[in-house]
Amino acid sequence: MYLTGEKVAVLGAAGAIGSNLAQTLLASGTASNVCMYDPFEPGLEGAAEEVFHCGFPGADVTWTTDLASALSGASYIITSGGAPRKEGMTREDLLRDNAQIAKELGIAIKANCPDAKFVIVIFNPADITGLTTLVHSGLAPSRVGTLAALDSTRLQSALAKHFGILQSNVIGCRTYGGHGEQMAVFQGGIQIDGIGLDAILGGKEVNGTSMSADEWKEIQERVTQGGAAIIKLRGRSSFQSPAQQSVFMLRGILGEAYGWPTGCYVENDDFSKIMMAMPAKLSAAGAEWQMPEGSDEDLAALKNSYSHLVELRDEVIEAGILPPLDAWKEANPNL
Amino acid sequence: MYLTGEKVAVLGAAGAIGSNLAQTLLASGTASNVCMYDPFEPGLEGAAEEVFHCGFPGADVTWTTDLASALSGASYIITSGGAPRKEGMTREDLLRDNAQIAKELGIAIKANCPDAKFVIVIFNPADITGLTTLVHSGLAPSRVGTLAALDSTRLQSALAKHFGILQSNVIGCRTYGGHGEQMAVFQGGIQIDGIGLDAILGGKEVNGTSMSADEWKEIQERVTQGGAAIIKLRGRSSFQSPAQQSVFMLRGILGEAYGWPTGCYVENDDFSKIMMAMPAKLSAAGAEWQMPEGSDEDLAALKNSYSHLVELRDEVIEAGILPPLDAWKEANPNL
Repeated sequence: MYLTGEKVAVLGAAGAIGSNLAQTLLASGTASNVCMYDPFEPGLEGAAEEVFHCGFPGADVTWTTDLASALSGASYIITSGGAPRKEGMTREDLLRDNAQIAKELGIAIKANCPDAKFVIVIFNPADITGLTTLVHSGLAPSRVGTLAALDSTRLQSALAKHFGILQSNVIGCRTYGGHGEQMAVFQGGIQIDGIGLDAILGGKEVNGTSMSADEWKEIQERVTQGGAAIIKLRGRSSFQSPAQQSVFMLRGILGEAYGWPTGCYVENDDFSKIMMAMPAKLSAAGAEWQMPEGSDEDLAALKNSYSHLVELRDEVIEAGILPPLDAWKEANPNL
Repeated sequence: MYLTGEKVAVLGAAGAIGSNLAQTLLASGTASNVCMYDPFEPGLEGAAEEVFHCGFPGADVTWTTDLASALSGASYIITSGGAPRKEGMTREDLLRDNAQIAKELGIAIKANCPDAKFVIVIFNPADITGLTTLVHSGLAPSRVGTLAALDSTRLQSALAKHFGILQSNVIGCRTYGGHGEQMAVFQGGIQIDGIGLDAILGGKEVNGTSMSADEWKEIQERVTQGGAAIIKLRGRSSFQSPAQQSVFMLRGILGEAYGWPTGCYVENDDFSKIMMAMPAKLSAAGAEWQMPEGSDEDLAALKNSYSHLVELRDEVIEAGILPPLDAWKEANPNL
């Protein structure tokens, strides 16, 4: 009835993302054993009561304001437990506060659930908070991933809208690198109702609709502002889609196909000591990334996005929240 | 992949319940074709964008601020589209405003989807808004039901908490009649870890825990205040549990077992021209109610709850929102 009965700790469970996560894990038949954690007790209790009142059959839902007991025995951890982004703030504005929260989480994971199977970090800037969690947790890099799908689903949705077709009929939308305004929106591989985007930009129509290079550029740019658009419309930042996509990620770890980018710890000739959105296979082994395929322009955008992330990472090192690069192995022998 | 591909209209979709509903219908694999309606356009667009960004495979999600086009072609309608209850308000305070909204909905259903298979009314006081919708819609009584489960799931959850056991191991929790403070909390039929509540009140323990008659009375009373408790804790009224339970109701209509009370139009020797929570079988035929079994005290509480609903109904008739009782057949020949 549920894909797993192992304990899933939802951190930040009093918040909009976390409380949605707890419900969605159960509603989708993903996990029956959900422990909700948040430091804000009344909101947490209220969120837990809501989940109780849902009456999910076979559910084992608990709540606690003690991080150690939330993590203890947890196989999976999904955390939206940072400070939320307010209107006008960029993701980067949140950098220092949330990196500090991520550091404390990593240390708590090391102390309470060093055998956790997978940690999904949602709170922004997720590339940096995920990286900081990983470094301090001591976990293997494949065991920590960040939510990195939303830019791609926003792109898919924007293209579907442009052509007036079902969203599922747009495939291959991928944004890699950082989940900030410097993200790399890949053009290669996109197919709209079976027609490649390159052919469409060359003049082919889909559903009687064409797309100019300018329109494509505009969509790319709009995607990088997708989160801000939601804030403007709803007066609050996204919470349903991050929760839902995190559940899809966990379902990937539990054996279902997951077709979106995942934020992974990347180390190769071009990139080093960074966490960023990459193509990745999710499975019981965790997240295994590979290099994306794309045009020269796509790959240049990825390098550019990487450079931006390096700057953010180095700010966090300077702030003393991440150790200097040459001391990472000490904090986490798996790196 | 989804239980139905027929159109589900979600009304009030910019709100907390409605936007959760749209996501949950998809996340749970219940319905793929979801039309989101709300008069508040920016919030609606934002809520729809969130659902788009979830990237549900095979989903056909649309949004509109035009009620007629939302209803047109809809097989199922779930509406939370009333004014929400604020802290300190009773459900009854909302009576007149929401009854008027229900009347307009009924008229719109008659005009745009007279063959709707099932309408689920959530907004409070749901017994009255559901009744008002039914009278004006012209639908058969079995085609309109109200969400009536939450008092029962609250009772289940409160008993599970008292005995420190899994919520699913408490069965037979049922509250009937009105979904207000006059609800009838039935004692007969409750089993806790396989032990009847009557035996427990007679001294039997469950999980090393006893329950006195006073404690049971206190739980009954707390349940009737369940909604207010959520508002106090979260600073907002319940939205996740109403959405989730409505999805469970739709799943019942689509063929799954549904074990909670449903608000049904009731006509028999004791009750007349009323909608109230009853035991009901949900199926493709709609909601078919039957008389609940219970102790004399339980049934007396149901009659008391009915009388309270009659007063509310008559207020709505006096306000001219419902026709006089003898004119109902004119508005709806199925009554």
